[in-house]
Amino acid sequence: MQSLDLHIDTGQRRTVDLTDQVRGFCREQGDGLLSVFVPHATAGVALIETGSGSEQDLEDILNELLPRDRIYAHRHGSTGHGADHVLPALVSPSVTIPVDGGAPVLGQWQRIVLVDLNADNPRRRVRLSFLSG
Amino acid sequence: MQSLDLHIDTGQRRTVDLTDQVRGFCREQGDGLLSVFVPHATAGVALIETGSGSEQDLEDILNELLPRDRIYAHRHGSTGHGADHVLPALVSPSVTIPVDGGAPVLGQWQRIVLVDLNADNPRRRVRLSFLSG
Amino acid sequence: MQSLDLHIDTGQRRTVDLTDQVRGFCREQGDGLLSVFVPHATAGVALIETGSGSEQDLEDILNELLPRDRIYAHRHGSTGHGADHVLPALVSPSVTIPVDGGAPVLGQWQRIVLVDLNADNPRRRVRLSFLSG
Repeated sequence: MQSLDLHIDTGQRRTVDLTDQVRGFCREQGDGLLSVFVPHATAGVALIETGSGSEQDLEDILNELLPRDRIYAHRHGSTGHGADHVLPALVSPSVTIPVDGGAPVLGQWQRIVLVDLNADNPRRRVRLSFLSG
Repeated sequence: MQSLDLHIDTGQRRTVDLTDQVRGFCREQGDGLLSVFVPHATAGVALIETGSGSEQDLEDILNELLPRDRIYAHRHGSTGHGADHVLPALVSPSVTIPVDGGAPVLGQWQRIVLVDLNADNPRRRVRLSFLSG
Repeated sequence: MQSLDLHIDTGQRRTVDLTDQVRGFCREQGDGLLSVFVPHATAGVALIETGSGSEQDLEDILNELLPRDRIYAHRHGSTGHGADHVLPALVSPSVTIPVDGGAPVLGQWQRIVLVDLNADNPRRRVRLSFLSG
């Protein structure tokens, strides 16, 4: 297994497009399966189009489905942080992508996006793992 | 890695049961992991029961969670198309299924279903990849 | 591929933390990818924090997104059972986790949680599969 940890500073961003970094990692591999995994309890990975407004739509929809002004049982952090802790159940922190000859088999508009509505922790790690086939 | 591209004409269907085709592909394999991956930005894969109404329930629930008459930032396509672009964040286009001796380890009622509420593009590709273990 | 079936009696629990059992299985492995797969049509797997209220928040949010008093097309089971059959489309029964030297690469607060709002069937199987890399 070949592995690489990406270190991301999300800053004020709620979504971060990881596609170029993932493509760079895959270029050193052959045929196999790529796991993109976020080892954090308040973030996920989505495969969506970027640059046409869908990042904003996703953030808005998640804020509707997981309202920050709702009362959460989760005890820690600032108001609305309970929502961040439900997010990974809906937007999984794990996605697996086939790779052909060093290139992930993504559709034309598919981008690999870190989703992290938690503004309290801007430092994130994303683990890429490639299993050759 | 063994791979196969399924070419699906969704027509007017919002959900397409892929289970029989996936079983056919797995039958040529042994023990390992199967990746079912949809290389499109407006579709997902769900493991649900079919034939008892749940496909309709899923479509209805998704239309409630991602209303087509909502205003989306996404700029392209017909009204409500912004919803299609959020769908893959909730219904992932990637699912991994263990395979034992050429048979996917599915539960009795589990079926592998392409979910695609986007009526504008009926031609879809689904990528099956098997990694032997 | 190394495999293990966990047999879980969910009893009245809606969420069951599987992390310790998964860690035990991984300890016998090396580097590779772990698939956690639930072969049931009304359950999912989530990677969330436990012990701080988020299990309750997840259950409450799912009951809001998939109301049990809604009318479902699904024909079988007790009232609200239609909701259970949509759940796996939102909370996937499949998650893949990288493993380094026999340890899953989980974040500090990430736990592996079976999500099963269906009180009618307390006996569940969870399939662990490890593919060495």
